[in-house]
Amino acid sequence: MPELRKDIITGRWVIISTDRAHRPTDFVRQSVEIRGEGVCPFCPGNEAKTPGEVLAYGRNGGGANTAGWSVRVVPNKFPALGIEGTLDRAGEGIFDKMNGIGAHEVIVETADHHSTLASLTERGVEEVLYAYRDRIQDLKRDRRFRYILIFKNHGEAAGASLEHTHSQLIALPIVPKRVREEVDNSKKYFGEKERCIFCDIVRQERESGIRVIAENQDCIVICPYAPRFPFETWLLPKIHGSAFEDASGGVYKSLAALLREVLRRMDTVLERPSYNYVIHTSPAGEETNDFYHWHIEMMPRLTKVAGFEWGTDFYLNPTPPEEAARYLREAAVHAV
Amino acid sequence: MPELRKDIITGRWVIISTDRAHRPTDFVRQSVEIRGEGVCPFCPGNEAKTPGEVLAYGRNGGGANTAGWSVRVVPNKFPALGIEGTLDRAGEGIFDKMNGIGAHEVIVETADHHSTLASLTERGVEEVLYAYRDRIQDLKRDRRFRYILIFKNHGEAAGASLEHTHSQLIALPIVPKRVREEVDNSKKYFGEKERCIFCDIVRQERESGIRVIAENQDCIVICPYAPRFPFETWLLPKIHGSAFEDASGGVYKSLAALLREVLRRMDTVLERPSYNYVIHTSPAGEETNDFYHWHIEMMPRLTKVAGFEWGTDFYLNPTPPEEAARYLREAAVHAV
Repeated sequence: MPELRKDIITGRWVIISTDRAHRPTDFVRQSVEIRGEGVCPFCPGNEAKTPGEVLAYGRNGGGANTAGWSVRVVPNKFPALGIEGTLDRAGEGIFDKMNGIGAHEVIVETADHHSTLASLTERGVEEVLYAYRDRIQDLKRDRRFRYILIFKNHGEAAGASLEHTHSQLIALPIVPKRVREEVDNSKKYFGEKERCIFCDIVRQERESGIRVIAENQDCIVICPYAPRFPFETWLLPKIHGSAFEDASGGVYKSLAALLREVLRRMDTVLERPSYNYVIHTSPAGEETNDFYHWHIEMMPRLTKVAGFEWGTDFYLNPTPPEEAARYLREAAVHAV
Repeated sequence: MPELRKDIITGRWVIISTDRAHRPTDFVRQSVEIRGEGVCPFCPGNEAKTPGEVLAYGRNGGGANTAGWSVRVVPNKFPALGIEGTLDRAGEGIFDKMNGIGAHEVIVETADHHSTLASLTERGVEEVLYAYRDRIQDLKRDRRFRYILIFKNHGEAAGASLEHTHSQLIALPIVPKRVREEVDNSKKYFGEKERCIFCDIVRQERESGIRVIAENQDCIVICPYAPRFPFETWLLPKIHGSAFEDASGGVYKSLAALLREVLRRMDTVLERPSYNYVIHTSPAGEETNDFYHWHIEMMPRLTKVAGFEWGTDFYLNPTPPEEAARYLREAAVHAV
């Protein structure tokens, strides 16, 4: 008999198959391969092929937009939103709209075209996290922006159009619905219990251990109780923190180690899958609070998407998170 | 400058590209081809390869589970939920679960393996709608079920695993979150204005005409104001109706004609795309009300899904609905 489980943050129910649970080898796996063909706009020496950089680490001397960097952030050449102008709101009969003011940036995670985030050193991953932080802090000074969304599409199946490893940032004049919902529901939970709902999750997961993949000094990575997707994983700081960009240096160091570790475990168990991750954090202007707890949600792309999920927010997951966590926990993590 | 638009039902904002809008030919199109290879469990003569039928139309004499039917409904051989047992609810620490009681059925839309829903006669499509209705009405007698979800995955890219044209039904002991949200928001709107929000949408769309694809006596098909996906379309009854299964015969006839027409227009404009549709209707026990308006949401699968959408409920749509509606409205609809 399958199980219906409720996601405690959003209230969404998901169906978890238990009888004919999918093991890693049951999925049609399309490993992400880096081919290195053609001219890559993210490679050193091609800096002129992107808009001018807004941040670069690791360059000792040398001018802006030249080689020598280790992490580089540039505006997206084909942005989803425009950075110039004032925010105009308007109605159209019963409908509401505003002009598409925002920022869309690309975080190039390494100069090496043949690396993946998983194959960087711990220090390399930490630099990427610092780039996220620095860009969020900078863009938040612009009062038009209410939310800075950081996400990564790895592999073609996950929507990546360029293979040189990179993340993206979109600064928005609105708070995405899912974030608003999470923050509001967490606030309600805190109002009732005087406890952060995510701190409660971390506590329960550490006690039972069955959905824990790994933890270190400051962070933990789990398969959530009611995941929408097989092998969905969440990375969270163990001590309450409401905004990603306000974490301490120690937390970034722990997070980098754990993020790298879980990516390597996924590469082993699922044979270098495509994946997406998204940083969930408090909206701009609401950074410091007791009720919301920033975290990263990661989804390997394993299943053919049935699409009707978008119409219903209703998901069938063929792999119980306890089994996913066990596979990932027990995986040998080889040096890459 | 792109535009941010708010979906009035759910409150979700989407980004609509206007500068570099995608025309139909800008999408990588993978036409759905019916190959007819191998043994098909949905073809006449193979009735024994499925669980016993729960409904069949068109059989003149002849026993159950024999050939001669025009529409046939069978339990899914690999159901996502189990039909037997009582609904048990339980906690697991702070989490909630219940056993996966439900029904999972397949509506085989025609005996002809080489047909699609678009290539059936109007009367053939109408029969499919009656099969939906009859199964909903039957399953609603089972008080364990709170919502009967009807959906269709057409083509491999949309999640269909068998090519013989069919729809699916899942009876659930819970109301999916998106449906709950739609119903609750519609109720709130009605409370404020004493008008159905969907009736207001139909009124405004008919007045402006820019997002209307087609209409007939009882139904209308539009591209919604704030669609998540390019060429997303909604089919609605023009007169208020809160439950799909309680519509009158005339409405099914109109809906069948319009559903067939819009599928044919999509086949012309987008070269036989994969698509999903979902019937949105009032939950069981809440069928008769002034505020919710049943409709069908249809999404051709044109874009590589960036996946992070699942984490954020935040969508980038490269085709303004006004342009999508114009392409679909102006398409020549050939006899198939």
